[in-house]
Amino acid sequence: MTKPFIQDLVNDMTLDEKLAQLTQLGPHYWGLDDTVDLTGPFKELNIEPHIIHSIGSVLNGIGARNVIELQTRHLQNSRQRIPLLFMADVIHGYRTILPIPLAMGASFDLAACERFAAIAAKESAAAGIHVTFSPMTDLVRDPRWGRVMETSGEDPYLNALVTASMVRGYQGNDLRDKGRIAACVKHFAAYGAPEGGREYNTVDLSSGVLRDFYLPAYKAAVDAGVAMVMAAFNTVDRIPASGNKQLLRGILREEWGFGGVTIADFNSVNELIPHGAAHDGGEAAELSLAAGLDIEMMSTHYLAHGAELVEQGRLDAALIDEAVIRVLELKDALGLFDNPFKDADPQADEAAEPSGEHRQAARELAAGCVVLLKNDDEVLPLKRGMKIGLAGPFAASVNVLGGWSGTGQDSAVSLYSGLAQKNAAGDILTGMTGELGSMLEGIFDVADETEEAYSRLKDCDVILVAVGENQHDTGEGGSKSCLRLSPNQEKLIWRLKDTGKPVVTIVFSGRPLELKPVLEASDALVQAWFLGIESGNALADVLFGDYNPSGRLSMSFPYTVGQIPVYYNAYQTGRPYDPEYPQVRYVTRYLDCPNDPLFCFGYGLSYSSFAYSSFTVKRVDDEDHLIASVEVENTSNIAGKETVQLYIRDVSASVVRPVKELKGFRQLLLAPHEKQAVSFEITRDMLMFYGKDDQLIFEPGEFDIMIGRNSGDCSTERIWIG
Amino acid sequence: MTKPFIQDLVNDMTLDEKLAQLTQLGPHYWGLDDTVDLTGPFKELNIEPHIIHSIGSVLNGIGARNVIELQTRHLQNSRQRIPLLFMADVIHGYRTILPIPLAMGASFDLAACERFAAIAAKESAAAGIHVTFSPMTDLVRDPRWGRVMETSGEDPYLNALVTASMVRGYQGNDLRDKGRIAACVKHFAAYGAPEGGREYNTVDLSSGVLRDFYLPAYKAAVDAGVAMVMAAFNTVDRIPASGNKQLLRGILREEWGFGGVTIADFNSVNELIPHGAAHDGGEAAELSLAAGLDIEMMSTHYLAHGAELVEQGRLDAALIDEAVIRVLELKDALGLFDNPFKDADPQADEAAEPSGEHRQAARELAAGCVVLLKNDDEVLPLKRGMKIGLAGPFAASVNVLGGWSGTGQDSAVSLYSGLAQKNAAGDILTGMTGELGSMLEGIFDVADETEEAYSRLKDCDVILVAVGENQHDTGEGGSKSCLRLSPNQEKLIWRLKDTGKPVVTIVFSGRPLELKPVLEASDALVQAWFLGIESGNALADVLFGDYNPSGRLSMSFPYTVGQIPVYYNAYQTGRPYDPEYPQVRYVTRYLDCPNDPLFCFGYGLSYSSFAYSSFTVKRVDDEDHLIASVEVENTSNIAGKETVQLYIRDVSASVVRPVKELKGFRQLLLAPHEKQAVSFEITRDMLMFYGKDDQLIFEPGEFDIMIGRNSGDCSTERIWIG
Repeated sequence: MTKPFIQDLVNDMTLDEKLAQLTQLGPHYWGLDDTVDLTGPFKELNIEPHIIHSIGSVLNGIGARNVIELQTRHLQNSRQRIPLLFMADVIHGYRTILPIPLAMGASFDLAACERFAAIAAKESAAAGIHVTFSPMTDLVRDPRWGRVMETSGEDPYLNALVTASMVRGYQGNDLRDKGRIAACVKHFAAYGAPEGGREYNTVDLSSGVLRDFYLPAYKAAVDAGVAMVMAAFNTVDRIPASGNKQLLRGILREEWGFGGVTIADFNSVNELIPHGAAHDGGEAAELSLAAGLDIEMMSTHYLAHGAELVEQGRLDAALIDEAVIRVLELKDALGLFDNPFKDADPQADEAAEPSGEHRQAARELAAGCVVLLKNDDEVLPLKRGMKIGLAGPFAASVNVLGGWSGTGQDSAVSLYSGLAQKNAAGDILTGMTGELGSMLEGIFDVADETEEAYSRLKDCDVILVAVGENQHDTGEGGSKSCLRLSPNQEKLIWRLKDTGKPVVTIVFSGRPLELKPVLEASDALVQAWFLGIESGNALADVLFGDYNPSGRLSMSFPYTVGQIPVYYNAYQTGRPYDPEYPQVRYVTRYLDCPNDPLFCFGYGLSYSSFAYSSFTVKRVDDEDHLIASVEVENTSNIAGKETVQLYIRDVSASVVRPVKELKGFRQLLLAPHEKQAVSFEITRDMLMFYGKDDQLIFEPGEFDIMIGRNSGDCSTERIWIG
Repeated sequence: MTKPFIQDLVNDMTLDEKLAQLTQLGPHYWGLDDTVDLTGPFKELNIEPHIIHSIGSVLNGIGARNVIELQTRHLQNSRQRIPLLFMADVIHGYRTILPIPLAMGASFDLAACERFAAIAAKESAAAGIHVTFSPMTDLVRDPRWGRVMETSGEDPYLNALVTASMVRGYQGNDLRDKGRIAACVKHFAAYGAPEGGREYNTVDLSSGVLRDFYLPAYKAAVDAGVAMVMAAFNTVDRIPASGNKQLLRGILREEWGFGGVTIADFNSVNELIPHGAAHDGGEAAELSLAAGLDIEMMSTHYLAHGAELVEQGRLDAALIDEAVIRVLELKDALGLFDNPFKDADPQADEAAEPSGEHRQAARELAAGCVVLLKNDDEVLPLKRGMKIGLAGPFAASVNVLGGWSGTGQDSAVSLYSGLAQKNAAGDILTGMTGELGSMLEGIFDVADETEEAYSRLKDCDVILVAVGENQHDTGEGGSKSCLRLSPNQEKLIWRLKDTGKPVVTIVFSGRPLELKPVLEASDALVQAWFLGIESGNALADVLFGDYNPSGRLSMSFPYTVGQIPVYYNAYQTGRPYDPEYPQVRYVTRYLDCPNDPLFCFGYGLSYSSFAYSSFTVKRVDDEDHLIASVEVENTSNIAGKETVQLYIRDVSASVVRPVKELKGFRQLLLAPHEKQAVSFEITRDMLMFYGKDDQLIFEPGEFDIMIGRNSGDCSTERIWIG
């Protein structure tokens, strides 16, 4: 039921005012900066300057002071006094930059994901932001794509849980509450599957794959009450998402019952034209409005053509009214009609530093994301007082916040700083002649300071090599065809290995890189992602064992780019590879590379060791009540966290099913030599899938129930479930 | 209308006999070799030995003599005296091994493709073969897949024309005619799109992409009257093709009107079980028979379970009868009821050598497939009497027939032999110490004889380096993650470049390899494929200019494996890359690699040079009659063949369309300084496409009409067509 005051507002609006309400522009159109020449931009947009007073929303964070000023002026100019909605890309923290979402996915820690979003919400709200374009929950299988850093990984189940946690963290129970903002899940749908991993490229999937893998996390956001959904740039079934009625009305609204606001991506309504899906702006507006896309972002075809579309009978005016009502309802849900500034707080927003509480949280969240990939001979943890050598372009780099961090602190705590704080009693030698971090230059390679590093560090007890990719080579527009470390970084690691001292390679990246070429040269290997402002402190916590690493990969790490896509939940093939017969040619395989990734989904080591035993799958009470359980023992002298993972395979069905699918996990904190039992109820919904006709169904039959420490290391029991 | 004698046979058959008629087994089940213990194999198949006398067809060529013996014995044992059908994989020639199909695609020469098939048919027929599992017309975009060698490339239009030509070449006008055999197009459908290029891996496509790109060539085979269609190993829409009713009945029979025989691929009915699409052999048989798959190959679930399926009411017995009728009709069409041996001719089959006529054809066909990729400073053609250096693992290798050549001559004419015949007046120095060709060892690398080659060849006038991939690394089960030449081959080319002498790199491969790493070191670059028995002679013809190279790539050659898939007819994106603004980040691109391939579809050089002029698109007579034309002049002193290519882009439509699609081409033979006009009528069918509802439609609008020398070099005119 639409509230009467909203219906009254709509009834009172002109068609142009309605279309303006459905339009989002950048703050420069309001001339916040007096030097801005408004004639230019408006002429470009093909709209009249006065319409600015009816526009519905503003793109980008501009700070609390500006928000208050702009909102105040707008309410003076707006005929109906409808407040502006301020939206921005708050991707991993606003002031306090937190780990990139791919790293958060690797935490497998849902409470942490909720906390992550709540911190971002609080700071964003203080900056006057009402909506963040987060969480991005696009399922990803191709690390060539730059935006894998912004999502939680390759698994629909994990993505769904992370997404729902983030939505709760941003939105809380009531959007009006202080410190809460609206979330906008993106990019609906399947933006994470651009062909060749090339940004903005075509996406092509069957509807079965779309439903099996790509849609669940968006649906989880809807089920969690997300306020907004952003349409993707890409095609789905040869139709760009921003003009895709089947997607935006059919699946999102009719099938899932989404009642919130949908929004275009930047210029994506206009891009129906270069896509060849619309021949002009009028057709673009027609397609998008008919598809159910409420807000047009940074292009103005709704405004320029909406009225003529209605006049010509090409568009039902009721569709426009519905969209406007949804936008006004969101403003109402945020309480903007009562308090148009919401939590905007210039003093809090302009504080020089993130709060101590948020810094501490940033450090804890970051530590939980680090994934220990290799640790031969217990090289790690480091011991205080050791003579530690430190080399590599990321040794002292503060440029490890990751993309989308412009609103936060400029720089992070470097690895060097973090280590120095820990190792007061010992030495940290650095391996470079110039300023630390000088190796990090340009996109494709770094300078060679290998021999310098070798001679300076050869007498250390242990050598840390901090390598990776430039943070600007990740994120939007950051697609790469080569995933190896730059040649000089690979060379540096191998040369330092010549010292005969243990080498710990620490990898800073926004994606799975190709680490095979340095695996043998690295006694230990630590995936450090881009961890936000507390990066160096969190890594020092992990490296010295003050935090026992607990991260688990949420995206497979390939052997080679030539093996992509490689992911754990592939469909069963008719000629599966059998590792017992590696020489058989006529099975699914490469001649020159394994089928499996170098490090699989769910993989990660700990300084503790965990033993699994007593795996059983039992029927309890009646046939339908199944419990899978296992006992896990910490067999080491170090307390640690283990992530116990449940996978299921539907052995045979009316459509081909994945070789395994994550259906549950449990994080255990185990004291030294503590043993805990873990059990999972196997519920019917874990066994359902979308059948031939895109209906969610259950089919009786055999299922493999698997529990283990990662997707590649499970115990299995096959059981009939009717 | 079923012929009465066929209906009578079916009426007289037991259900088991019908199911046996739908079963294909290898010749060893007939105990051709007396030492074979039949108990073992039959037990494995779960069938009774006596059923062998009712089996319908035999897999693999066994020679005319054996066919006659086996057919004779079979007719004595068969209750109804129904002759066996002998089928085999004759992929690029039977005795006379011809160029691989990917090379034939590069000829762009349809008459040559028909001749290719006719030669293979004649020799196969003499060997007693009735059906070849060719043409394989799977569209391919991923050179990691080993079987790209067996198809004509990445373009649906070219694939369709090549396929139709081959069907005509095999089948002629009447299958009873001497020297003709039945063709079996494969692999229906979309087998060419395994994910990651990994053999037998999942295929996933939207129905739009399936229809836009993958289906047209199979349909062309059906329209050309192909006798048989083979179902693919892969899934289509999550259902394995061999049990896919929508595909085999819906599209193939109902939509396209195919009345011939369908056949499984090797064991593919059984593989419904590991695929997880059937839980046992009974369900596999049920799915495949219901789907309309007539013949089960090398598994026996039809035989073992067909009767029980009918009894249990799970399968309509009429479906079995229909399938049997189709198999008998094919036997009748081949004339086997009148002459069960057809053209089987032991004398011709067992001749020591292919006929001179076929050898000559093999040489001509092979020369037409060679693609000249680079020719700086007119290094080529070679001049007689030059001092020619020859190095590389393929310098004197006779192992360049390509996969699927077991029935032919053991070996090909080597490059060395071919050159030696031409260069009687000059010298050919070889670069290796050991036996020529000794570098070609193993799968992943070859021995390093670089310095030996350098010192021996440094005083030559020109140096040819014959490199490539082992022929066994191509074809079925030949997927590779790395497409570079082996390190020692790359090193050899670069070292020979140090001589300062012109270096001509000649690449033997069954796929596009990654040639960028040796491009700068090569003054000329020749794509030599695997050209069959006359390989060396044909290459010598090209290298010496006795044949002016005319091949054009039918599959893109990537810069790097990290760029795959790269192909010319991609869909339009919303953020196209503009080469005039190479630094713009937020367009579809990689940071470290071009979007375009190294060598694009349609690309190939000639020793002649051709100038294009006077490009026009005109309306003639009425609105609907459009003619695009261009003038092409041979501006050189050498006669040559140019392939003029017509591409069309539908600028805007109800679904996103490709950036360009090949819609016509014309091969011109131009004398020195001759000019010819070429014109193409733009017909309505060139402008149609499958719309949202999978219906073939035409939509008025703007179209770009393009004519040029390759997909990357065209003149364009935009025109409205209503």
